Amino acid sequence: MPTPHHVTTLTNPRSDRVKAVRALSRRSVRSRTGEFLAEGPQSVREAVSHRPDLVRDVYVTAEAAGRHPAIVQDAVERDLWVHEVTPEVLAAMVDSPAPQGIAAVCRTLDISLGSALRALSDRPTAALVCVLTHVRDPGNAGTVIRGADAAGADLVVVSDSSVDVYNAKVVRSTAGSLWHLPVCVGEPVPTILAALRSAGIRLLAADGAGETLLPDVDLVPPHAWVMGNEAWGLPADVREACDEVVRVPIYGRAESLNLAMAATVCLYASAQARHEAR
Amino acid sequence: MPTPHHVTTLTNPRSDRVKAVRALSRRSVRSRTGEFLAEGPQSVREAVSHRPDLVRDVYVTAEAAGRHPAIVQDAVERDLWVHEVTPEVLAAMVDSPAPQGIAAVCRTLDISLGSALRALSDRPTAALVCVLTHVRDPGNAGTVIRGADAAGADLVVVSDSSVDVYNAKVVRSTAGSLWHLPVCVGEPVPTILAALRSAGIRLLAADGAGETLLPDVDLVPPHAWVMGNEAWGLPADVREACDEVVRVPIYGRAESLNLAMAATVCLYASAQARHEAR
Repeated sequence: MPTPHHVTTLTNPRSDRVKAVRALSRRSVRSRTGEFLAEGPQSVREAVSHRPDLVRDVYVTAEAAGRHPAIVQDAVERDLWVHEVTPEVLAAMVDSPAPQGIAAVCRTLDISLGSALRALSDRPTAALVCVLTHVRDPGNAGTVIRGADAAGADLVVVSDSSVDVYNAKVVRSTAGSLWHLPVCVGEPVPTILAALRSAGIRLLAADGAGETLLPDVDLVPPHAWVMGNEAWGLPADVREACDEVVRVPIYGRAESLNLAMAATVCLYASAQARHEAR
Repeated sequence: MPTPHHVTTLTNPRSDRVKAVRALSRRSVRSRTGEFLAEGPQSVREAVSHRPDLVRDVYVTAEAAGRHPAIVQDAVERDLWVHEVTPEVLAAMVDSPAPQGIAAVCRTLDISLGSALRALSDRPTAALVCVLTHVRDPGNAGTVIRGADAAGADLVVVSDSSVDVYNAKVVRSTAGSLWHLPVCVGEPVPTILAALRSAGIRLLAADGAGETLLPDVDLVPPHAWVMGNEAWGLPADVREACDEVVRVPIYGRAESLNLAMAATVCLYASAQARHEAR
């Protein structure tokens, strides 16, 4: 096991520090402090390597440090605070039935939609944006963010009516993608759609009731996929505010695809079109 | 509420019949009896409308019959046994924290790989097959079967090393697709691959470590996607037994896609290629 640079072995699972970390499982506490907890080696590795500026403290058991020496090494080299903790302390910190021995308290990403769109307009390539509206299931939200990252999306926007992206299950389901691309949160859907439109980004609603089939859409110009709730899709006002309502063709007898699958198919169609256009 | 044709209101949650239905939550009982339980309106509706020959008994509460009159009507018209049950009886039958008031005992699909492949060879279109090997998570297995159905696959083959497709969570995750296309189960992976190869079906292993990129594969001729375990992918011997090891390109910084997403992207690429070739 490499020796962490800043070692303070924490042994008391009832300390104020442990309680403060555990309190981050509550949305109200995350909003107030601007912090959240990333659990498990994959999340911590990606946070440390991609956004060390957002990592406040890494907590690791001796056993997990032995299993993941590269993560600890990377954190130490970036001069982050790494604290060795007992398994009891780690279990008291995290809201998980199977703690994986390592967690990090991170600052929330806090990028405004305005600044994210200005950054996009400076890029030479056409924008690909993914908008989540009314998505309530943490696993679905995280999986869509992971899919957007894999498809090379430039930006993810999660509306105020969706699950909190700093929820532990969302963070885990993104498999580190939360630190790979800008994610804007907290704006209402109409504000998001208006801002994207002003930025010259075409709005494509993904909906099983859409009239336009996915293979018929030109996915080379800048565009945003607008995804709705897992059970009831997009509300009529959101569909109407978009430029086009697009459906993934069903070639067999299935009624529909689930949200994460439909999002992945749409985002990959965009990725493929952008890739071929280059 | 339409009046079911065969009405026997069941009120005793401790009856032998209720115990026999509940016992179907155990894999050993499903294997012995050749029966399994489909829960919820979506599963029951698809079973009744697509494979009434496999439905033994439908159980429904008065409340659920009122919410889903078309399902009850359809079952009655097909001369199936429909039993009204109290909510307590239904809760005692199903292995679900939130029973939805309707369930059906079905016979397992039991189609042999040989006969499924013979049926395929009689079709005019090139075969699209999806093979699941070592897939352990019920939600993933069901989602991939649903994706295969949506993409218009002709056949799903689930190896003996995978989760039981008649597990309640798999059945629920297929969203009815289990009754839409032939699903073969119980054969070991080498037998499956050899049978597909003899039938002239090209074997494409889907694996993040593949050398061939998905957009570079000719997906018009008959082929099978071979999908592996959600955590550790395909074992070396399975990859080597396939004609090509294909990876979905990652355009961003994500390490990988999860199993269901990768499967959906591959199956939809096949669907699109087959569709364009027609």
